Amino acid sequence: MVGTVGAETMSLLSKGYGNGKLDLLPEDFDPATPPPAAVESNGVGGGRKEGEMVLGRNVHTTCLSVTEPDEDDESTGDKDAYMAGVLARYRKTLVERTKHHLGYPYNLDFDFGALAQLQHFSINNLGDPFIESNYGVHSRQFEVGVLDWFARLWEIEKNEYWGYITNCGTEGNLHGILVGREVFPDGILYASRESHYSVFKAARMYRMECVKVATLVTGEIDCADFKSKLIPNKDKPAIINVNIGTTVKGAVDDLDLVIQTLEECGYSHDRFYIHCDGALFGLMMPFVKRAPKVSFKKPIGSVSVSGHKFVGCPMPCGVQITRMEHINVLSSNVEYLASRDATIMGSRNGHAPIFLWHTLNRKGYKGFQKEVQKCLRNAHYLKDRLREAGISAMLNELSSTVVFERPRDVEFVRRWQLACEGNMAHVIVMPNVTIEKLDDFLNELVEKRSTWYPNEKVQPPCLAADIGRDNCACALHK
Amino acid sequence: MVGTVGAETMSLLSKGYGNGKLDLLPEDFDPATPPPAAVESNGVGGGRKEGEMVLGRNVHTTCLSVTEPDEDDESTGDKDAYMAGVLARYRKTLVERTKHHLGYPYNLDFDFGALAQLQHFSINNLGDPFIESNYGVHSRQFEVGVLDWFARLWEIEKNEYWGYITNCGTEGNLHGILVGREVFPDGILYASRESHYSVFKAARMYRMECVKVATLVTGEIDCADFKSKLIPNKDKPAIINVNIGTTVKGAVDDLDLVIQTLEECGYSHDRFYIHCDGALFGLMMPFVKRAPKVSFKKPIGSVSVSGHKFVGCPMPCGVQITRMEHINVLSSNVEYLASRDATIMGSRNGHAPIFLWHTLNRKGYKGFQKEVQKCLRNAHYLKDRLREAGISAMLNELSSTVVFERPRDVEFVRRWQLACEGNMAHVIVMPNVTIEKLDDFLNELVEKRSTWYPNEKVQPPCLAADIGRDNCACALHK
Repeated sequence: MVGTVGAETMSLLSKGYGNGKLDLLPEDFDPATPPPAAVESNGVGGGRKEGEMVLGRNVHTTCLSVTEPDEDDESTGDKDAYMAGVLARYRKTLVERTKHHLGYPYNLDFDFGALAQLQHFSINNLGDPFIESNYGVHSRQFEVGVLDWFARLWEIEKNEYWGYITNCGTEGNLHGILVGREVFPDGILYASRESHYSVFKAARMYRMECVKVATLVTGEIDCADFKSKLIPNKDKPAIINVNIGTTVKGAVDDLDLVIQTLEECGYSHDRFYIHCDGALFGLMMPFVKRAPKVSFKKPIGSVSVSGHKFVGCPMPCGVQITRMEHINVLSSNVEYLASRDATIMGSRNGHAPIFLWHTLNRKGYKGFQKEVQKCLRNAHYLKDRLREAGISAMLNELSSTVVFERPRDVEFVRRWQLACEGNMAHVIVMPNVTIEKLDDFLNELVEKRSTWYPNEKVQPPCLAADIGRDNCACALHK
Repeated sequence: MVGTVGAETMSLLSKGYGNGKLDLLPEDFDPATPPPAAVESNGVGGGRKEGEMVLGRNVHTTCLSVTEPDEDDESTGDKDAYMAGVLARYRKTLVERTKHHLGYPYNLDFDFGALAQLQHFSINNLGDPFIESNYGVHSRQFEVGVLDWFARLWEIEKNEYWGYITNCGTEGNLHGILVGREVFPDGILYASRESHYSVFKAARMYRMECVKVATLVTGEIDCADFKSKLIPNKDKPAIINVNIGTTVKGAVDDLDLVIQTLEECGYSHDRFYIHCDGALFGLMMPFVKRAPKVSFKKPIGSVSVSGHKFVGCPMPCGVQITRMEHINVLSSNVEYLASRDATIMGSRNGHAPIFLWHTLNRKGYKGFQKEVQKCLRNAHYLKDRLREAGISAMLNELSSTVVFERPRDVEFVRRWQLACEGNMAHVIVMPNVTIEKLDDFLNELVEKRSTWYPNEKVQPPCLAADIGRDNCACALHK
């Protein structure tokens, strides 16, 4: 049963069926074709060479083949039993993997039991959220409710914004930068080099001139460097990606200083467009003391945030809000849908808005505030404990991303699902990350570390260049 | 309870909470701000002017606001009760809307009860499907199983293809055309004017030169016109979007004739890139007798298909397959993910591959063949009955899309969720569309029509220009 299509089924297939001719598969089709020669991980241990990137395992060797049903499956129930078995094992893995996850900013703490009933419907918000399409199985009434909530958070009136629920943070960035480019077709895209890779992907996709700006050791954009890059390009408008939480260090670019820098360089407000990539912190920042405020009362063009990160959602999704005046540049009426299409994707997952609506309603601004505070507290706890154990670590003031020395063992990194870059790894403290989980992680790390560095011959890496001398605990800087 | 944030909650909010300062909403925030002045539908009746597009209703007037929880919600259970009520009503609408849906190519007949257990997990296949990322809560093993199934359907070896499960058909087109542009940076995009709007959106996004090609009355690409457009542009490579089922008429472009035309115009195989947009029919065609075969044994670059259409899936999704050799041009290693990113979206819904895997396993090639045959039979039934009733109608040979005279009543169009363009409407006969449903629809249409056209003073529109004289039943052509 399990495996690839058997010879028996194949011959059955090639006989054809009913009044259509089935001519699908070559007779010499070999189900045992070897998997592609993909880049393999170099396994466990400290064998990673400087600068060499460790890629994950090749999935082709472990994938679950789709198999043709046997003739008698319906009577024997074999196929259903096989699939139920696969799913039960998979569920177990998910429970285990969810338990040990620390490296990505996904809030895995949610309960959408009440929404299970909706899985039977093909819900699609195709086209514009504000204009009903002829396809009736949609969830726009939830989507617009969610958008209004975010519009209010970022201080823009209902009749002045346009937005939609995206498939992920990347779609928000792709959309924001596209709107910027349509407003300023010859604009130059400026982004700090620690911006999310989707920003540079956008520049390439959209054939935009792109200037990378240096960062401070915290990961924030370096506005002195920004200034030096703006001045020689003053003849062209500026499109700026501002990070409300960078991917690796959780650094928050100083929006006010970015605007001030633009003004100082002689850019009037009609000569620049700012997109705020608030993937994770776009939703946390409003609740953090002293955080520079993201608000449409400032001269910004768009803000995006992920929905599966701080809010938590079974599938990736995001929210994108921009000014109504910009969107008219982009949209074109699509009669087929009886709607406008100013989105990137067109067809859009109608379940995600309901998940978001459900969580926002239950938690409210107040509930999110509580959770943000818990995350920041726990992040401080983790950073302090790491430093006490003599491990290099940094935590930005407005962030729950704890950056520390990259663990030497690939298996350890995988087990805790840490995101790594160069000599750094990070843990992002989300609402589902408890003190107990952090303690388990810390104890295991300290124990493993004593085997990685048993004596002075092998030393932990120096992180001074990555996170600053003060945060580095290497032999030289401790 | 229901409504916007009450004054009481607001004052509670502005007091601040814990050690963070809450400074969210302006005191003078007016929850009664009027909705944006969006384009309104012009209502029921025959008031539509020629060429005027009917947009759907503005959702802002009917949306479900997110409200801040009251202090005592947890003890009273009021909020939970409110939300349960909203969801129950919504579910009822979905049942009703699903029952009457005919115009969009979504198979609404699925049962994923066995998968409800997975809704508790945040499943994300970020980055490349074939290389595991450090984020462990993924479903790549299912995804690659599904991709292999499609690779086999479209005749490409496992070690020669690359692909991924997308968020929708549009993402497949955006990806295929982007790959084409990266292979031929100065290539011209050719697409028939009846191509899906996402193809033209791609051209604009990617800043590509785009040439629209005329169509035959069936909706197929007109290869004589294609030839005349190719010849003067021979110095530049060609990137061609081939429709395996157009959106409105379900017309299938003749892939072999397109290739032959390119060859006749002197384009060698290393001077063109063909993307096949198989949104709906990409999965039906292999099971249709006499259909031109979509196969990587021919000189094509990529094929995309939607997963929520013929297969059926609670949320939009799709499959994109291209040649491994092309993808190396596009991908760049993203260390943060320990994976490559050659996708458009980056973060990707990990539930969709499991839904697809589940359905492919249950139905198999054989099951799909049966369903395709049923759809084609039922589509013929509908077309014949329409013609018998004296209504203009067309059905392309390889298609289950029945094009007919646009109903005069906007409410009727909405009730049956018909997609319309100009004087045409269409029904797409999917596996969940039974003869009974078609009969209900036909009876209602015939009855309503007798009120729309009570005498000879008001005549149904002429569709000769849209679907040909032979298919037109207007006063002049019947």
